[in-house]
Amino acid sequence: MSKSTNTLPESVAVILAAGMGTRMRSAKPKAMHPLAGKPMLRYLLDNVEKVFDKVVVVVGPNMDEVAQLAAPHQVVVQEHRLGTAHAAIQAEEYFGNGTVTILYADNPLVSKKTLKKILECQQQRDVDMVLMAMECEDPKSYGRIIEKKGWVRRIVETADATEEEKQIHLCNAGVICAKVSSFKYWLRQIENKNSKKEYYLVDAVAIAVNEGKHIKALRASEAELSGINSKSELAVAEQIVQQKLRKKAMDNGVTMLAPETVFLSADTILGEDVLIYPHVVFGPKVHVHAGAEIRSFSHLEGCEVKEDAVVGPYARLRPNAVIGKDAHVGNFVELKATTLGEGAKVNHLTYLGDAVVGRKTNVGAGTITCNYDGVNKHQTIIGEEAFIGSDAILVAPVEIGNKSLIAAGSVITENVPENALAFGRARQVNKKKTTK
Amino acid sequence: MSKSTNTLPESVAVILAAGMGTRMRSAKPKAMHPLAGKPMLRYLLDNVEKVFDKVVVVVGPNMDEVAQLAAPHQVVVQEHRLGTAHAAIQAEEYFGNGTVTILYADNPLVSKKTLKKILECQQQRDVDMVLMAMECEDPKSYGRIIEKKGWVRRIVETADATEEEKQIHLCNAGVICAKVSSFKYWLRQIENKNSKKEYYLVDAVAIAVNEGKHIKALRASEAELSGINSKSELAVAEQIVQQKLRKKAMDNGVTMLAPETVFLSADTILGEDVLIYPHVVFGPKVHVHAGAEIRSFSHLEGCEVKEDAVVGPYARLRPNAVIGKDAHVGNFVELKATTLGEGAKVNHLTYLGDAVVGRKTNVGAGTITCNYDGVNKHQTIIGEEAFIGSDAILVAPVEIGNKSLIAAGSVITENVPENALAFGRARQVNKKKTTK
Amino acid sequence: MSKSTNTLPESVAVILAAGMGTRMRSAKPKAMHPLAGKPMLRYLLDNVEKVFDKVVVVVGPNMDEVAQLAAPHQVVVQEHRLGTAHAAIQAEEYFGNGTVTILYADNPLVSKKTLKKILECQQQRDVDMVLMAMECEDPKSYGRIIEKKGWVRRIVETADATEEEKQIHLCNAGVICAKVSSFKYWLRQIENKNSKKEYYLVDAVAIAVNEGKHIKALRASEAELSGINSKSELAVAEQIVQQKLRKKAMDNGVTMLAPETVFLSADTILGEDVLIYPHVVFGPKVHVHAGAEIRSFSHLEGCEVKEDAVVGPYARLRPNAVIGKDAHVGNFVELKATTLGEGAKVNHLTYLGDAVVGRKTNVGAGTITCNYDGVNKHQTIIGEEAFIGSDAILVAPVEIGNKSLIAAGSVITENVPENALAFGRARQVNKKKTTK
Repeated sequence: MSKSTNTLPESVAVILAAGMGTRMRSAKPKAMHPLAGKPMLRYLLDNVEKVFDKVVVVVGPNMDEVAQLAAPHQVVVQEHRLGTAHAAIQAEEYFGNGTVTILYADNPLVSKKTLKKILECQQQRDVDMVLMAMECEDPKSYGRIIEKKGWVRRIVETADATEEEKQIHLCNAGVICAKVSSFKYWLRQIENKNSKKEYYLVDAVAIAVNEGKHIKALRASEAELSGINSKSELAVAEQIVQQKLRKKAMDNGVTMLAPETVFLSADTILGEDVLIYPHVVFGPKVHVHAGAEIRSFSHLEGCEVKEDAVVGPYARLRPNAVIGKDAHVGNFVELKATTLGEGAKVNHLTYLGDAVVGRKTNVGAGTITCNYDGVNKHQTIIGEEAFIGSDAILVAPVEIGNKSLIAAGSVITENVPENALAFGRARQVNKKKTTK
Repeated sequence: MSKSTNTLPESVAVILAAGMGTRMRSAKPKAMHPLAGKPMLRYLLDNVEKVFDKVVVVVGPNMDEVAQLAAPHQVVVQEHRLGTAHAAIQAEEYFGNGTVTILYADNPLVSKKTLKKILECQQQRDVDMVLMAMECEDPKSYGRIIEKKGWVRRIVETADATEEEKQIHLCNAGVICAKVSSFKYWLRQIENKNSKKEYYLVDAVAIAVNEGKHIKALRASEAELSGINSKSELAVAEQIVQQKLRKKAMDNGVTMLAPETVFLSADTILGEDVLIYPHVVFGPKVHVHAGAEIRSFSHLEGCEVKEDAVVGPYARLRPNAVIGKDAHVGNFVELKATTLGEGAKVNHLTYLGDAVVGRKTNVGAGTITCNYDGVNKHQTIIGEEAFIGSDAILVAPVEIGNKSLIAAGSVITENVPENALAFGRARQVNKKKTTK
Repeated sequence: MSKSTNTLPESVAVILAAGMGTRMRSAKPKAMHPLAGKPMLRYLLDNVEKVFDKVVVVVGPNMDEVAQLAAPHQVVVQEHRLGTAHAAIQAEEYFGNGTVTILYADNPLVSKKTLKKILECQQQRDVDMVLMAMECEDPKSYGRIIEKKGWVRRIVETADATEEEKQIHLCNAGVICAKVSSFKYWLRQIENKNSKKEYYLVDAVAIAVNEGKHIKALRASEAELSGINSKSELAVAEQIVQQKLRKKAMDNGVTMLAPETVFLSADTILGEDVLIYPHVVFGPKVHVHAGAEIRSFSHLEGCEVKEDAVVGPYARLRPNAVIGKDAHVGNFVELKATTLGEGAKVNHLTYLGDAVVGRKTNVGAGTITCNYDGVNKHQTIIGEEAFIGSDAILVAPVEIGNKSLIAAGSVITENVPENALAFGRARQVNKKKTTK
């Protein structure tokens, strides 16, 4: 049979996502642990969908959340966790007639380029199986790959390795690609004669070698292939993802004084010449436009910061905060579902929730919107060029007209018309202190 | 004499802790500088107590703080700082009849395992002295150990080393173990013929070698053995300790998105599936229970966070804060000696000191307890399911009944009964602004 | 001609600072991007001024800011950006009669020591040109230096390099030094026969070699010489500068628990035994005196902290804040143009602007100065040993006498004499809640 690398046969990717990850010590399915705020399975899906013709995801029982994330791809439930080969068999009816590639939800950082290489490698003359391999500085518990004349001879588990074999740093990453017909045949021969009585996919390698098949160990970096089996490994993967996101942002013209202290989400959008000071955290769904400045100790999520706005230090922007062009949000200020008009200023110790602040309005230190009455949330509307004196309390629903002035320390419970001056505070009395 | 590794002779550890550490440029005795909040001497004592039969600590004059930390172990004062050998001699009467091991307070990270190995090595046939050694990538000013046929021949100080000797990276860590009888004899022969006129313990090596004694260089890692002589080296040791603490927490199931930005104390207790966001600081005595979430920019000390509570971002928990199950402490909120009941919420710009907040109570933005009248501290007791309006001022001592409601902006100076509505604020007046 | 290294000929340094740095993707001239708050050109100038007899800076059109920074040195404008050789020619009339050295504003970390070495090397017998070289682990797009018998033979650009040449890691840093007479001659021969039609200074190397001249490749570290052409490279340089500043501070006796999380400015002054907790940011012009403590999440700029004061956590000190000896500034407190007397305390959720606080005065939680009326800023003067109750509003201009007491929640609009008690709040009323 002559193979062509141009017209590939149908390619099916099977992602094993049934693991709970006991070493993670978490109630969350492993596939759902996020990296930069995005579940790890989603990273793999994003790349796999672009390379393979069809995707099948094998989940465990009661993993609705994982199944939902996997949609609209085919989802198969592995009712009993009897090993990776058993998991792969659950998806057998969707293998098709071309090639099948087994991937893992806890190997989420495999790149699109590597996925393409797997399929290309499988099409090469003489290749019966592709096995992903990585050079590990510290092979830990990974199986070592023993090669001969460029083909895989054997995989040796660390426990069984001789001293000489332990010197080998080429490790088995577990990802396998083969023709469906061969793969199904090998799968059926895998046995569970081991201490855990599980069916291990890696045994397909020995079976294929025994049949005289050719297995190619395709190399990729440890950063792409190393598995996430513990909270420590999750933290390492998070760091890899963060470094990529930071690099990409800087390549797009973002200035970060200390990128290693800035944490992004996978969906953070940062415009050109955005300036980010040390120690800033971006939760999901943040869009910062060109020229804006995000100062130290700021925490943003679900918000938009427009051109040339200045945010922080110590600004806390929560979902649906929109900071207008040239607006300032300063120290110890929290905004939730609040829109600041162009050039508006909210600089100190303030909480605004469910509010609209007009352009060029100044909100004084210590201002608080009482947007919640214990049952419902209400809106506060402040006009343009208004001046809210310090420590004002705005009891929503309430409207404050353009160019109005609220005296410091006032409790505002009724609407204030345009151009008005509103007071709501007691008069001062000085007395002589009684001696103690 | 036949030696047995099973029945060890009496083992005495002498810890030299008299140094002020001039290179530290600090008024604090070197032994008291903390790592993860615990004085470095305490790290060494924790391990030494478990391995040795008896511990003696040599302190400098006027080091009551160090002596107190060393209690109940034997403390000896070295009145004049005349070198390490002179310091060791001060403890001579407590050496006993077995072996003596000289350790250093500024070498605090020697592991229990290594300490055991020292004693075992000293019991080996032919070994007269054990000297701790480390392979240093950069030997800096450490003395190089010259070995011959597996025994120490000589220690060469960097200043005196030939080019060839400078290629040696095996360095003397200073820790010595020997039979008491031999050690006493060598100590007495050490002279102070050097520029500083001090008695150096390292000279015992040359003396012993001259007598034809066998000295074993026992290896351990630089991370365990390198000394802390400057603020930079203190920072490096702090990082080693922090990495161990973080690793241990993650192994126990704690999720840290960015462990390198989370600072723990040696006594921090973190339950399973606790989630810690980037940029969090744990001072001493913090206990966070399973499932709780600590968000970015939070700072906790002396407090307890119960199951599934959410803390931060920007939460400041001070000593004796207790956060109930499912309770929320939010942005720019400081709690001191305050207990939050189950499901209570304190979400924005609030200071609560010496307070008790009942279950399901909501404390509005900007609420402040006036717990201090300039002389004494007083308590604020808030019942269950109460609603404290924004910017309320609670002048302690004061009690607020269950299901009561405090109007926003009120100053509360008197008790509020159950189910009541309390006001304490001025009425609003709107006027026309005078034109400027 | 016999050369002497003792009496050097006149030395002129030409700094090329005309680049906009398209890869920086910024509207700011490259030379102005700051490292630790100081423009990168300034770093180079600081060292160059101390080593060279004369300094010339070549700027681009409309770069007034750069020209201003370069003053009082000679500034030359390169009207059209036609390459580095063209830039150098603009400065030709200021080359003098000795040696000329071409440096780059985006190579700001060249040390004084290296600059001296360049001049010394140029004086060595047989040396006609000095070319700065660095061993790069990853040579990226740097030209490789091919040497023969210790002299530069050729510079090969990466694109033109053979596989063998790509193994060479010695890279051209671009810095050139030569006798003025030779240099002028070479400059004139450089052509612009390349894709960008620019005149490249590096071509002087080939021209000189063709003439049989001797070019010495003088080595320095990549940390000193690598160029800053992108935001990522800017971040790397920032980290190098920060590490130097932290190291220097620690050598001077500052304790930093986690130096990697502390960001300094080039002009930060820190006294002995200052203690800095993790996550602290120092903007420009900060002076912290001996024994003071700066706690986590603090942000300081333009301020002075006196002996043994305690700042933070979460303290925000803005320009012209002066914290007295033993004073405390605590959680979520912002001070601007405010002086705290000895032992004064401002511990929680406070904003003080344009204020003076006397010694031993206590400012309660939630206090706010209304220093801005929308047009002007006014002052608040608080005496000694006063007690400002929580959530007080101080409407400036206002004065509060020594030992006076402000009741919690008061709005203070008029002066308060010494020893007085001032109230400005409504009375509390309790009602029965209406059932909902």
